[in-house]
Amino acid sequence: MGFEHREEHIDEGMLLLQANIDDMNPELCSYVGECLFEAGANDVYWIPIIMKKGRPGVMLNVLVDESRLERMEEVIFRETTTIGLRYLRASCHRLAREFKQVATPWGAIHVKVGYHRGRMVQFAPEFKECEQAAKQYGVPLKQVYDEVRRLFLNGEKHSDML
Amino acid sequence: MGFEHREEHIDEGMLLLQANIDDMNPELCSYVGECLFEAGANDVYWIPIIMKKGRPGVMLNVLVDESRLERMEEVIFRETTTIGLRYLRASCHRLAREFKQVATPWGAIHVKVGYHRGRMVQFAPEFKECEQAAKQYGVPLKQVYDEVRRLFLNGEKHSDML
Amino acid sequence: MGFEHREEHIDEGMLLLQANIDDMNPELCSYVGECLFEAGANDVYWIPIIMKKGRPGVMLNVLVDESRLERMEEVIFRETTTIGLRYLRASCHRLAREFKQVATPWGAIHVKVGYHRGRMVQFAPEFKECEQAAKQYGVPLKQVYDEVRRLFLNGEKHSDML
Amino acid sequence: MGFEHREEHIDEGMLLLQANIDDMNPELCSYVGECLFEAGANDVYWIPIIMKKGRPGVMLNVLVDESRLERMEEVIFRETTTIGLRYLRASCHRLAREFKQVATPWGAIHVKVGYHRGRMVQFAPEFKECEQAAKQYGVPLKQVYDEVRRLFLNGEKHSDML
Amino acid sequence: MGFEHREEHIDEGMLLLQANIDDMNPELCSYVGECLFEAGANDVYWIPIIMKKGRPGVMLNVLVDESRLERMEEVIFRETTTIGLRYLRASCHRLAREFKQVATPWGAIHVKVGYHRGRMVQFAPEFKECEQAAKQYGVPLKQVYDEVRRLFLNGEKHSDML
Amino acid sequence: MGFEHREEHIDEGMLLLQANIDDMNPELCSYVGECLFEAGANDVYWIPIIMKKGRPGVMLNVLVDESRLERMEEVIFRETTTIGLRYLRASCHRLAREFKQVATPWGAIHVKVGYHRGRMVQFAPEFKECEQAAKQYGVPLKQVYDEVRRLFLNGEKHSDML
Repeated sequence: MGFEHREEHIDEGMLLLQANIDDMNPELCSYVGECLFEAGANDVYWIPIIMKKGRPGVMLNVLVDESRLERMEEVIFRETTTIGLRYLRASCHRLAREFKQVATPWGAIHVKVGYHRGRMVQFAPEFKECEQAAKQYGVPLKQVYDEVRRLFLNGEKHSDML
Repeated sequence: MGFEHREEHIDEGMLLLQANIDDMNPELCSYVGECLFEAGANDVYWIPIIMKKGRPGVMLNVLVDESRLERMEEVIFRETTTIGLRYLRASCHRLAREFKQVATPWGAIHVKVGYHRGRMVQFAPEFKECEQAAKQYGVPLKQVYDEVRRLFLNGEKHSDML
Repeated sequence: MGFEHREEHIDEGMLLLQANIDDMNPELCSYVGECLFEAGANDVYWIPIIMKKGRPGVMLNVLVDESRLERMEEVIFRETTTIGLRYLRASCHRLAREFKQVATPWGAIHVKVGYHRGRMVQFAPEFKECEQAAKQYGVPLKQVYDEVRRLFLNGEKHSDML
Repeated sequence: MGFEHREEHIDEGMLLLQANIDDMNPELCSYVGECLFEAGANDVYWIPIIMKKGRPGVMLNVLVDESRLERMEEVIFRETTTIGLRYLRASCHRLAREFKQVATPWGAIHVKVGYHRGRMVQFAPEFKECEQAAKQYGVPLKQVYDEVRRLFLNGEKHSDML
Repeated sequence: MGFEHREEHIDEGMLLLQANIDDMNPELCSYVGECLFEAGANDVYWIPIIMKKGRPGVMLNVLVDESRLERMEEVIFRETTTIGLRYLRASCHRLAREFKQVATPWGAIHVKVGYHRGRMVQFAPEFKECEQAAKQYGVPLKQVYDEVRRLFLNGEKHSDML
Repeated sequence: MGFEHREEHIDEGMLLLQANIDDMNPELCSYVGECLFEAGANDVYWIPIIMKKGRPGVMLNVLVDESRLERMEEVIFRETTTIGLRYLRASCHRLAREFKQVATPWGAIHVKVGYHRGRMVQFAPEFKECEQAAKQYGVPLKQVYDEVRRLFLNGEKHSDML
């Protein structure tokens, strides 16, 4: 469920790796993403772009700590068709995050809460757990989400009043 | 320069062919487009889409008269990797169009004019000719465009006054 | 706030108008959309596409009742640069919809509710009203949304129990 | 592995369902797709679009036999936030397809072959099997693909010569 | 109408803030943009991206002077659902710009002119003013644009000749 | 055919130039790209974005050595409508690359090979040469590609065995 109780902080030494790809079977993209996450990427995403001669390519983006640059390059050159990549320095500001539990008709489900300067600014039901509840109980996934959010907020309201 | 002096009309018997492609080298796209135009397509364009398992694919779109369906299919199956395609019936409304000449510092350049119910509603400098003038005379292409449009409109204003 | 208390129904005689545009200043798009809505379009949306010679164009899409085809064409030829358009027949399935009021700390806010075969399947706070509350009271818009949703669901739960 | 040995054919009675969605958590998209495939969709894909007020929405597309329209609608209204959808008639041209086996250093892997008017026009290694081989043997996925394609073509060349 | 008569210059201390968002109602995007502009953003734009598990997300981009980083973060964490963001250093090269007036049949309309090394390289009619003229006088917006451009260029030609 | 036999290396002093454009005729894009490549750009690509007021714009991206910044700016201000641009520092990691020849039924075709730490990780048939062969011999372009790849790999296998 990701990192819990982390302090809000800024990582100065992050890199954003980018590779423009116009000659790879797009079927490979999700597998490439998995390999990069396994090798320690903080985030992986794809941007549809238009390349030389109007080719509809994709730009692979990998956000990663600079200490893992080599490992990422190894995966990118091994698993994609690119013959080069670039990287830019980035700083990442990450909120403090904490997991809270909500009791629902479909069992306990976690909510990831984000704090900026000590104030709760975000809360998000854990996708995997909601999805599993939806499948197991035959409930629409959006209803599970809504219900977890409602119960979480009801709980917050209640504790406000104490 | 396309069809001149055509009447405004509606073609009822057009087809929109579509094929979702997620396993083809995107380098091939422009070549596929050329082959389809040569075989009689009225228009060819690509839409970035997200396919099964989050794959960043492209959807090939071909607008064509139904009489040329087979020829298009021949090209699509031959030149792309798709194992199926779909087509939808469409009607095309095309404006009357006419080419007029504008005398510019870089020679005569054509302007395509479109008429809806007899009234001029569109005018567009011919791209190829503007591009060639820009290259030959070392002028920014946007300046050639702007100048052709200005001169065309000046001419229209003048003839309005007669 | 759109149509209230309508029955769930299917409109068979709808048209989807499409025009590929690669030579228009994109600044015009939002204005074009407004004009089409004013002239009776049911929906207007834009799709980024890749056109001939790799040009990054946009495809204008207008969903409209076939009785308003001419009015739409008038606007499209008048306000965009296209010299042709196409249309495809479509059927629209629309849920029964009803507006309910929710009392919030920022005044009453409407929720649009959708019914499929008599069962509530959708509910959505009215965007305009939430936005206005957020601005007036200096509350994050997402918080207004969440609160309206929570209060609406709490009310539904309560009435379930009666 | 999909349908084998099917004849090339055209399905006239297909529908393309579309719903523009600008108020749904995008996390839900992949789940929605899975539900639709399970309920009998032939294809599901998403197109990034720009909706009213410049909202970056997505258009859900479902290709399905008209006999399954109701089942699809049930899923779409249940699992997405849309309060309406549209459908257009489409014809699907599907190639004859057959699965052949290729012996590789990582075990037998299937290749899906497509025939247009009796001539082989497509061949594609089965993604799932290649992915599994890549994971199990620690080989780059692209190398597995290339090797399956090479071995398949070598086999075809050989049988040509007999 | 933005800054007038500014000298062409380079701002070294700019930041490009980015946040990938896959769990926010896209309806919120335009409001988020407005809040960021009000808080001092130089530019705000959105890029459609494909995130983990094939989710169609959007990347928020904010270009801003580094002195306003905190204010931007405050808005982003408050108004979006992200629990982190990144920023990259950027330098901005801005042309000298000046506003000139053009007398048109619909009143005076401004044209923003851009200079690179003292030479006029850009000119653009003010969108808001053109839009207002189009609405007030019932003229196509594109025609207002074209006419402002024509009249501006005619004036420039004339002054060239003096 | 690009640079041959180059060593794998990292260029630290690269710049990524970006300009958001929402008021330019998209027809100009390919011409702008050509001008930038001629003036020494390492890469040029376009990203569809959503700008202020929901305008569907494009972001021009130019990757270039910092020594050529001024030349690029000259072209961008001259050939596009932007009144500003930004640049970010980037490092480019480029593989060693080498061209090998493959004898095919349609004559010799080159394959660009990429090496990471001395190991071949990429190989790609030269697009231009494959395209020319496809046109000259009336063979599907994808078949030319596949055949070049097959023959190249057969050759590699053979030399492995010696």
